Amino acid sequence: MSLYGGVDLGGTKIQTVVVDGDGAKVVGKARAATPSAGGPPAVVEAIEQAVRAAAAQAGIDTRELAGLGVGAPGEVDPASGTLLRATNLAGWTKPFALGPALTERLGPPTALGNDVDVATLAEHELGAGRGVESLLGVFWGTGVGGALILDGRLWRGRGGAGEIGHMVVRLGGARCPCGRRGCLEAYAGRRAMELKALREVERGRESTLFEIMRERGRETLASSVWARALEEGDGLARHLIDRAVRALGAGIASAINLLDLELVLIGGGLGTRFGRPMAARIAEAMSPHLFNDGRPPEVRVAELGDLGGSIGATLISRRAVH
Amino acid sequence: MSLYGGVDLGGTKIQTVVVDGDGAKVVGKARAATPSAGGPPAVVEAIEQAVRAAAAQAGIDTRELAGLGVGAPGEVDPASGTLLRATNLAGWTKPFALGPALTERLGPPTALGNDVDVATLAEHELGAGRGVESLLGVFWGTGVGGALILDGRLWRGRGGAGEIGHMVVRLGGARCPCGRRGCLEAYAGRRAMELKALREVERGRESTLFEIMRERGRETLASSVWARALEEGDGLARHLIDRAVRALGAGIASAINLLDLELVLIGGGLGTRFGRPMAARIAEAMSPHLFNDGRPPEVRVAELGDLGGSIGATLISRRAVH
Repeated sequence: MSLYGGVDLGGTKIQTVVVDGDGAKVVGKARAATPSAGGPPAVVEAIEQAVRAAAAQAGIDTRELAGLGVGAPGEVDPASGTLLRATNLAGWTKPFALGPALTERLGPPTALGNDVDVATLAEHELGAGRGVESLLGVFWGTGVGGALILDGRLWRGRGGAGEIGHMVVRLGGARCPCGRRGCLEAYAGRRAMELKALREVERGRESTLFEIMRERGRETLASSVWARALEEGDGLARHLIDRAVRALGAGIASAINLLDLELVLIGGGLGTRFGRPMAARIAEAMSPHLFNDGRPPEVRVAELGDLGGSIGATLISRRAVH
Repeated sequence: MSLYGGVDLGGTKIQTVVVDGDGAKVVGKARAATPSAGGPPAVVEAIEQAVRAAAAQAGIDTRELAGLGVGAPGEVDPASGTLLRATNLAGWTKPFALGPALTERLGPPTALGNDVDVATLAEHELGAGRGVESLLGVFWGTGVGGALILDGRLWRGRGGAGEIGHMVVRLGGARCPCGRRGCLEAYAGRRAMELKALREVERGRESTLFEIMRERGRETLASSVWARALEEGDGLARHLIDRAVRALGAGIASAINLLDLELVLIGGGLGTRFGRPMAARIAEAMSPHLFNDGRPPEVRVAELGDLGGSIGATLISRRAVH
C-alpha cells in the first residue's frame, strides 16, 4: 500500500506525518522547532530531518513515499512548488522553490499548498467539516489564518484568498504585526497579544503571564501559558482574551455577512487549546454583528488538532500524484 | 420576438423596463416613487402601474411579455417568489409572495431576485464586469449593498450572502440604521450619512446640505444634493464623504483579503453619481488595508447606471422562462 508524507510548516514548529494511502491512518510522525534564523536553507534542513524521522517511525525510507505534501504559512505557487512570501518565517525574504528542494533531498514528488488551506481541506474531508458544502476555517494561533470551502471546493481567488486575519475590524485601530492598522490579527493573533501584554506589564500592570512563561521554560506566550493564566484568573490575560474574542466575533461575522456560509471551524493553537467553550464564546461575540441573525452558521472546533495541517498536506500530495 | 419586463424595486424608486429577447435593447421604460406607506399592497400597485407604463411605451400589453423579473431590496426566496424581508421598504413586516401577486395582475410568469444580485448579474453579463470570473459589486446608495460573482456565477450562500454593508469596519463604532454598531453602512449609507448630517447641523455646525435639498425640492439628501454640496466646497459634506470613503475602503479591502477577487464594481445612486474619480478614491482608501497590496483588484464604475437593476431583472426572468 502507498504511503504519503505530510508536512505542516508553522511559524514556530514543523509537524510531519506519514499516512497510509487510504486516508487518515497515521503510521509515523515527528515534530521539530521551526528555525528562527538561516532562512530557506535552514527550513529545508529542518523539514528534511522531521520527514526522515516520521518515515523511520513508519519503517520506510523517504524514497518509498508515493508523494510528499507541504502546507506552508504564506502565499504559494502550487504549479512550481514555490513559497512566494511567508511573513511568519524568519529570513524568507524572497520566493523560494521549496517543493523541488525537498524532492531533491527526500525523493518523492512534493506538492505545496498554503498551511491554512490544507488544514481546512483536511477538516472538510476527514474532520469537523464533513458533510457541509460551505465553510470558513479560522486558525487562531500566532496569527489568524483563514480558508474557505465554497460549493465543496477550496476557494483561493487569484491565489491569496483567506486572509481573514487582515480583515479590518477597527478602522484606525491597533497596529498589526503586518504593519497595517485595525486588522483582526492585531487584536487576536498570539504574537500581537504578546506584544500588547508586554507593553501593559512594562507600564506597570500586574500579570502572571510572563512568570508562567518562564516557569514553563517557554520563550513566548504559548497557548498553554494563556490557558494557565486564565485558569489562575489573571486580569490582563482575561482582558486580552476578551478583546481577541470580540475581534474574532466581528471579523468572522463580517465574513458570514458577505458569504452566508453553513459552518465556521475554529482551529489553530489557541483555538484548539481553548476548545468548545471558547468556540461558544466566539459564536456569542459574532451574534450582535450577524445580519441574518435568526440563522447563524454553526461554529465548531477543528477535530484533527495538531496533526490536521500535516494530514491535509498528504491530501494535496495524493491529489497531485493521482 | 419575445419581450421581457424587468423591475428594479428600490427603497425610494421603482424602475421598470421592457427589453427585447436578445438582451439589452430597451424598448420601454418607466419610473415611479416607492410608496412610503401602505405596505406590500401599495408596492404591488405601484409596480403594476410602472410595468404597464413601460409595456405601453413598447406598444404591447403586459400579457404579451414572455416573462417578468423583479429585483427586490431584501432577502428573497426565488422558488416561491417571496420577498422575505425588506428593511428599506416601509411596512414590509413579514414575508409576502410578490412574484405571484404580480403574475396575477400582469399576466407573465414572474421571477424574483435580490436587487443587488440582479444588478451585479447585469453588469457581469452586459456591463463593466464582462470578461472576469470573480467580482464584488458594491451598490453605494441609501444603504450599501453587495453581490458576488465567483467562478462566473452568482454566489448566494444560504440565500443571504452579499451583505457587505453590514461588515464591521469599526468595532463599537457608529450606530447603523440596521440597529447594529460599526457596520460599513453606518458610515457610508446615504440614510446614515443624512442622519449624521442632521445631528451635526442641529449641534450648530454650518452646512448648506439641507438648503440645497430644499432648493431642489427634495425631501432627503439625494445623491445630487451631496454632489452639489461637494462642488460648493461644503465642509460637512466633504467630511462625511471622506468618512464614507474610508469606511468603503476598509470594508471592500476586507472582502478582497478574504476572497482575492479580480474586480470591484462600484454602483448605486452615490457610486454612479460620483463616477470614476470617486472610484479612484475608494481604490486609494482600500490600498492601506490590502494584504496582497502588490496586486490590488481593479476598481471600476458600474456601466448600466440607473437601468442596471431592471435590466438584470429581465435576465433572471429569461433564465426562469427558458
